[in-house]
Amino acid sequence: LRKGFPEVIFGLGKTREQIAGILEKMVPKENVILVTRIDPTTADPLVAHFPDAAYFPDARLLRIQKTAPDITGTGNILVITAGTSDIPVAEEAALTARAMGNRVDTLFDVGVAGIHRLFAHKEMIRQAGVIIVAAGMEGALPSVVAGMVGAPVIAVPTSIGYGTSFGGMTALLGMLNSCASNIAVVNIDNGFGAGYMASSINHVGVDKDTAL
Amino acid sequence: LRKGFPEVIFGLGKTREQIAGILEKMVPKENVILVTRIDPTTADPLVAHFPDAAYFPDARLLRIQKTAPDITGTGNILVITAGTSDIPVAEEAALTARAMGNRVDTLFDVGVAGIHRLFAHKEMIRQAGVIIVAAGMEGALPSVVAGMVGAPVIAVPTSIGYGTSFGGMTALLGMLNSCASNIAVVNIDNGFGAGYMASSINHVGVDKDTAL
Amino acid sequence: LRKGFPEVIFGLGKTREQIAGILEKMVPKENVILVTRIDPTTADPLVAHFPDAAYFPDARLLRIQKTAPDITGTGNILVITAGTSDIPVAEEAALTARAMGNRVDTLFDVGVAGIHRLFAHKEMIRQAGVIIVAAGMEGALPSVVAGMVGAPVIAVPTSIGYGTSFGGMTALLGMLNSCASNIAVVNIDNGFGAGYMASSINHVGVDKDTAL
Amino acid sequence: LRKGFPEVIFGLGKTREQIAGILEKMVPKENVILVTRIDPTTADPLVAHFPDAAYFPDARLLRIQKTAPDITGTGNILVITAGTSDIPVAEEAALTARAMGNRVDTLFDVGVAGIHRLFAHKEMIRQAGVIIVAAGMEGALPSVVAGMVGAPVIAVPTSIGYGTSFGGMTALLGMLNSCASNIAVVNIDNGFGAGYMASSINHVGVDKDTAL
Amino acid sequence: LRKGFPEVIFGLGKTREQIAGILEKMVPKENVILVTRIDPTTADPLVAHFPDAAYFPDARLLRIQKTAPDITGTGNILVITAGTSDIPVAEEAALTARAMGNRVDTLFDVGVAGIHRLFAHKEMIRQAGVIIVAAGMEGALPSVVAGMVGAPVIAVPTSIGYGTSFGGMTALLGMLNSCASNIAVVNIDNGFGAGYMASSINHVGVDKDTAL
Amino acid sequence: LRKGFPEVIFGLGKTREQIAGILEKMVPKENVILVTRIDPTTADPLVAHFPDAAYFPDARLLRIQKTAPDITGTGNILVITAGTSDIPVAEEAALTARAMGNRVDTLFDVGVAGIHRLFAHKEMIRQAGVIIVAAGMEGALPSVVAGMVGAPVIAVPTSIGYGTSFGGMTALLGMLNSCASNIAVVNIDNGFGAGYMASSINHVGVDKDTAL
Amino acid sequence: LRKGFPEVIFGLGKTREQIAGILEKMVPKENVILVTRIDPTTADPLVAHFPDAAYFPDARLLRIQKTAPDITGTGNILVITAGTSDIPVAEEAALTARAMGNRVDTLFDVGVAGIHRLFAHKEMIRQAGVIIVAAGMEGALPSVVAGMVGAPVIAVPTSIGYGTSFGGMTALLGMLNSCASNIAVVNIDNGFGAGYMASSINHVGVDKDTAL
Amino acid sequence: LRKGFPEVIFGLGKTREQIAGILEKMVPKENVILVTRIDPTTADPLVAHFPDAAYFPDARLLRIQKTAPDITGTGNILVITAGTSDIPVAEEAALTARAMGNRVDTLFDVGVAGIHRLFAHKEMIRQAGVIIVAAGMEGALPSVVAGMVGAPVIAVPTSIGYGTSFGGMTALLGMLNSCASNIAVVNIDNGFGAGYMASSINHVGVDKDTAL
Ligand SMILES: Nc1ncnc2c1ncn2[C@@H]1O[C@H](COP(=O)(O)O)[C@@H](O)[C@H]1O
Ligand SMILES: Nc1ncnc2c1ncn2[C@@H]1O[C@H](COP(=O)(O)O)[C@@H](O)[C@H]1O
Ligand SMILES: Nc1ncnc2c1ncn2[C@@H]1O[C@H](COP(=O)(O)O)[C@@H](O)[C@H]1O
Ligand SMILES: Nc1ncnc2c1ncn2[C@@H]1O[C@H](COP(=O)(O)O)[C@@H](O)[C@H]1O
Ligand SMILES: [Mg+2]
Ligand SMILES: [Mg+2]
Ligand SMILES: [Mg+2]
Ligand SMILES: [Mg+2]
Ligand SMILES: [Mg+2]
Ligand SMILES: [Mg+2]
Ligand SMILES: [Mg+2]
Ligand SMILES: [Mg+2]
Repeated sequence: LRKGFPEVIFGLGKTREQIAGILEKMVPKENVILVTRIDPTTADPLVAHFPDAAYFPDARLLRIQKTAPDITGTGNILVITAGTSDIPVAEEAALTARAMGNRVDTLFDVGVAGIHRLFAHKEMIRQAGVIIVAAGMEGALPSVVAGMVGAPVIAVPTSIGYGTSFGGMTALLGMLNSCASNIAVVNIDNGFGAGYMASSINHVGVDKDTAL
Repeated sequence: LRKGFPEVIFGLGKTREQIAGILEKMVPKENVILVTRIDPTTADPLVAHFPDAAYFPDARLLRIQKTAPDITGTGNILVITAGTSDIPVAEEAALTARAMGNRVDTLFDVGVAGIHRLFAHKEMIRQAGVIIVAAGMEGALPSVVAGMVGAPVIAVPTSIGYGTSFGGMTALLGMLNSCASNIAVVNIDNGFGAGYMASSINHVGVDKDTAL
Repeated sequence: LRKGFPEVIFGLGKTREQIAGILEKMVPKENVILVTRIDPTTADPLVAHFPDAAYFPDARLLRIQKTAPDITGTGNILVITAGTSDIPVAEEAALTARAMGNRVDTLFDVGVAGIHRLFAHKEMIRQAGVIIVAAGMEGALPSVVAGMVGAPVIAVPTSIGYGTSFGGMTALLGMLNSCASNIAVVNIDNGFGAGYMASSINHVGVDKDTAL
Repeated sequence: LRKGFPEVIFGLGKTREQIAGILEKMVPKENVILVTRIDPTTADPLVAHFPDAAYFPDARLLRIQKTAPDITGTGNILVITAGTSDIPVAEEAALTARAMGNRVDTLFDVGVAGIHRLFAHKEMIRQAGVIIVAAGMEGALPSVVAGMVGAPVIAVPTSIGYGTSFGGMTALLGMLNSCASNIAVVNIDNGFGAGYMASSINHVGVDKDTAL
Repeated sequence: LRKGFPEVIFGLGKTREQIAGILEKMVPKENVILVTRIDPTTADPLVAHFPDAAYFPDARLLRIQKTAPDITGTGNILVITAGTSDIPVAEEAALTARAMGNRVDTLFDVGVAGIHRLFAHKEMIRQAGVIIVAAGMEGALPSVVAGMVGAPVIAVPTSIGYGTSFGGMTALLGMLNSCASNIAVVNIDNGFGAGYMASSINHVGVDKDTAL
Repeated sequence: LRKGFPEVIFGLGKTREQIAGILEKMVPKENVILVTRIDPTTADPLVAHFPDAAYFPDARLLRIQKTAPDITGTGNILVITAGTSDIPVAEEAALTARAMGNRVDTLFDVGVAGIHRLFAHKEMIRQAGVIIVAAGMEGALPSVVAGMVGAPVIAVPTSIGYGTSFGGMTALLGMLNSCASNIAVVNIDNGFGAGYMASSINHVGVDKDTAL
Repeated sequence: LRKGFPEVIFGLGKTREQIAGILEKMVPKENVILVTRIDPTTADPLVAHFPDAAYFPDARLLRIQKTAPDITGTGNILVITAGTSDIPVAEEAALTARAMGNRVDTLFDVGVAGIHRLFAHKEMIRQAGVIIVAAGMEGALPSVVAGMVGAPVIAVPTSIGYGTSFGGMTALLGMLNSCASNIAVVNIDNGFGAGYMASSINHVGVDKDTAL
Repeated sequence: LRKGFPEVIFGLGKTREQIAGILEKMVPKENVILVTRIDPTTADPLVAHFPDAAYFPDARLLRIQKTAPDITGTGNILVITAGTSDIPVAEEAALTARAMGNRVDTLFDVGVAGIHRLFAHKEMIRQAGVIIVAAGMEGALPSVVAGMVGAPVIAVPTSIGYGTSFGGMTALLGMLNSCASNIAVVNIDNGFGAGYMASSINHVGVDKDTAL
């Protein structure tokens, strides 16, 4: 039994029956299980049936957690969003990273068109060990954040926007072309991947038996 | 004779002979003439031949100017760049706007990955009547600038970058998706158009006989 | 209290409850509030509940306005459309510009395939201080209008069309490549941004305490 | 021997030797032969060697013509360009259509940003049986022309432009989305195809033995 | 009253009330009226209300026709499709061309993967004055047809296909790159434009008073 | 020593010294070696130095072959091209397949715009065990060929064309959307891959010790 | 009567009545008939009505089969998927190939992120005569499989994924750029085409009267 | 003086004089300076002039290093490439990471089409603290590597390939769609950014005064 390390089921396109079937087998053996991309009507009966289950509607994530995972990660992971519409992606990242044994803080709606909102939190940003930044539209926030710190920044483009935002493609391209260098990018709306990668980073140098 | 208002020749793809021919006809009638997108080997003999001619190699622009144009624009036009590589586009914009009767200031290399560089010039930015911002790569600077002022911002994407910058397309898309609202965008590397549009804006409400 | 200058809520993706909550806090402090991209079923109960509220179904915009804003802008803003299908975007632009203290005229359905319709209004076009042109399909109208005047033209591509109109991308590209120079472009269907930018332009040189 | 109907060789990528070889076989049997997309250094020795050969550098076309072809087409074909840079494509179209037995007129540099230039030629445009319009950048001219006449218009996008003109793609898309209906489009820079198609149209209803 | 020449209303996005309003004004003055892109639920009450009205569900076209238009076009227009799924676009083209005074024949489901089906109709194809070819997927049929005749071919890409057919873009690109030269192309699914252009071609050289 | 089965070096971007170094080690152990995508100036000194070496300039391929490989493939591989410009890609395919122990026939310049050229070779096409079809521009030929036979067809898009041929992308898309079903596609200009895949197909069911 | 060789109806966009009509005519003459891309509500009444009919909901395929087709193909066809979501495409391929007289094995959910799952089946993979690999997301599995064998591999990109998977385009591009050479690719989600092509390959060298 | 932390100059587009000027000012104050994307003819005179300067032609990187930087990073950084053509990008990454105080190992030419090459190095891969994987063409290697370890993987797409590799875009898309979760991606050919990000990751939890 890998203590504290979650099993993850990709919920999209799976029926309630299929997910229930997988969970029945996993629950006896695992401490934490996540089901990502699961909608409320699929999740609600599962929450009712499985003890220790909770559904997070913003993140569209179902979590079964017997005991809170030990904190094994080195530093704090900070999850930032440019707007309020990016919060669901950020929540998916935060929940994933917490399930993997990390301390996680959040800072939402501090996008670049009113940059003073970001600067009001300078200290919190500078203290973070790893930073995740979720942004849609022009996707400029990760560049600004990365320019303020030495820590690694995971940029998550979101599909928020219209017209030439092309479902997040514009944000993605902006992040890949950042003039900051301590940045790497994950797929559009991939909050899960961002949280997982941040946790992986936050466990570099951690004794493998402890972490996993 | 329209006093102070320039004639403009698009130099790209025209031979020295063709440009010389057009200039011979224009020079007697005009006070200021611009030839844009003209390379040094084409421009140098023209500078030698026509009095009052000067070549600006960064902007790749040749100007024949008998007397400095009257300042007819309402406010100051401020031209900002994110990096040093964007300066040629910015210079083309600045020269165009000056030739059309505007006071023009410049502020170069203040891109978002080191945002303190921008904030050191807060006052200058707040005083400007119209602002042009040229940026390549992720093209985030115009959003940040527009969030700091009420003045109209003309965003000029530049073709600076590599890989997924796609010759300026990424910067263009970022600018079109700005979360600021006092922004409009011109074609990639179109410093001339940005300067022209800024001048047009800076002459709104100006008595037409004076301005033109 | 900034007299006459509107607060704006981006309605898309917000529930009626969320919008009502924001409005409750804003209404005591503001003279004019706009909610953009809000559909009728969300808007109707809000209109019933808030005094001074009106819903504009074409523009999909809800406005709460205690007293008409003072006219502080320099000239007239003229909003033109190529077809009748572009009118919703144009109305959003017109309502935004009016809420920001501008005189606004409109001229609809004068697209390039019957160019005499446009020319019948030559005088009105020449008198405008700032012009907004909304067009879908091939997006050619802003070029023609800009060629007729010295005033700045804000081009708004609309998503009207089918097949290779690619949801407004063809119109956008046409506008960015205009052979006229007094043009700048905003995002597809971004009537709000066009009205805002036009107002910003129409207030260049206006004493800031008066305008804002 | 098909009297007056040209043979055509696509010159691009063929060596002088290859073209000479093909011509040696064709010349005895044909009255008119065109070689398209051939550069001057390849063409010059061929002109020197073959009687009745002429090279048109703008159109990059080599023509061998023993006797002028009979005029068999119904009406006049009019070839229009938006700018001066579009002339080479227009010349290729005009030479092709003339070689196929049509009367061809031309009208160059009458683009939409100065629409009065176009309207000065209203009568000539209304008299044409078939119209070809070549334009780059935003490609708006064919729509305007088609809106003025009932005759069929062949739109030829050219690769003239920079930035988001994407080598003619923007002009092409604009033409395909024309709000006029008497328009069809050929490939970017395909002057040959435009001239050929126009001739084909201009021979509808012509007795096939006469025309071919 | 222009005898036999139809008025056309673009139905897409218009309500039944809007269309009824336009029709009320047009009907007294016109012999033939077409409403394109109108769905059955919008069309049915209009058919019930207006005499001489008929709805063509495949083509999604409503026609009001007092008397059959005179045949004024020079030759026969032949409308061909590659598959059965392309028939709606072809029917829209055929109905448009008939309404404009042309004799129209059709030949459906003769695509290139079973080329013998096409060749069985060689004579019919060779006799046509103008040919329209509608095809989706790889869009190869217009090239093959154009290679068999001297007549002009209007190629209409359809949105039929899946995966990399990209809603008709692949067919469109194939048609623009045809190795035949007597081809020009209209927008994806633009049956109306194809029929209109074919009629325009079929009236070249026709006395304007007769045709229009 | 695997008898008759070639080693292959991808020449692109390798210097003459690098290729020579690899060859020195391979030659003692191999019967047939191919170097693909190698230009004449790189190849010529290698041909001079290595016995049994030959350079095929059309295919840009260098071959070192001690003895002709045994024919182990089941049937004949037929390589067809639409135009003459596609021949280099076809030659690369043919040389690759021959080096891998197959009988290979070729049929060049039989594209769809003159379909009778193709049909003149009906018998040869029907006899082939595997068919490779290389075509640029609209890429329609593989569909037509596949519709004539039951044998598997490997379609190779070539970068031949201009404008919207997009360096072979249009041909590629056409081939992927073929309405025939016995077709699969390789990368643009990938003659080597087509020849290799055809040989792999032609050895299905062949005793592995014999073939390899 | 072609024994064992199926007739195929493309079900997409056809009504139950249309399909029933075609089947009524085919059933007396054919041993095996497939209807592809047919949903359950269309299929169920057909299954009830036609003897020997079965519906495969995963593959969305209806099959009428009087007697099992003879096995005429040379080797085994192996159908592999990267994930569980790719199984419907794989099932369509498998059912098609079986209906065409082939032995077909399957191996599902062995994608590259846990490559040991694939390697556990090394022997089965090496024994296959032809291999089909269906994969979405990054589409890497076909390269790995092709690197393990000499047999031909048909790669089928699936539309599984989100964000930059672009409906299967990313998987398609990855497969076309495979660094293995015994690979060719079919359209996105084209399980039918993959099965058909694999059968065509598996019958190379088979006596045509036997196979067809 | 920040001990061991490099200053970096982006060499692309800067002249030798410009770079020399910047270096003259930096050298007295810095221990390590990198100039990236600098070609040999620009670099050679600089190497001759500045003591402690070395040029790395593969990586196109010039380094001035007074003393080797202290190793401050937590674990080993391992740089892997799929092919030999990806080595320049990998070398740029390795030199950057070394200059920033990290132990760096390399493993080249172990791409997925011959997966045994990769597996021969399983232990080395499992020991690494951070992994960089550079790959062009289909870009599948990072997925396979990430599936073998828990450490964070930085994927660098390279522009190696032809046809539909689209200058690295295909590899980039594949990496963004990886079915492994401990992956993040940087811009095409961005070896510098990959090395910088890997170092940033390798210093998480390191006392900031020590590391910087
Ligand atoms: N939201 C998500 N986005 C991308 N990958 C995910 C997501 N959720 C889970 N996964 C991955 O998908 C795997 C499970 O897929 P499955 O076997 O289809 O449930 C997990 O091991 C995760 O690596
Ligand atoms: N750099 C430029 N970019 C875009 N348009 C330009 C540029 N320079 C000049 N123009 C426009 O091109 C027109 C002149 O074109 P031409 O007649 O070809 O010299 C001028 O009136 C300007 O409007
Ligand atoms: N500029 C051109 N663009 C497109 N097609 C052309 C052009 N010039 C010639 N062609 C066509 O190419 C054919 C000759 O091609 P080829 O056999 O390669 O010389 C002619 O019959 C024309 O149909
Ligand atoms: N799922 C499929 N994808 C692509 N082509 C198909 C598919 N199913 C059937 N076909 C092809 O479509 C043809 C029948 O089309 P139809 O005449 O419209 O029923 C068959 O002969 C097959 O070649
Ligand atoms: Mg916000
Ligand atoms: Mg800088
Ligand atoms: Mg209208
Ligand atoms: Mg001009
Ligand atoms: Mg059919
Ligand atoms: Mg040919
Ligand atoms: Mg799985
Ligand atoms: Mg290698």
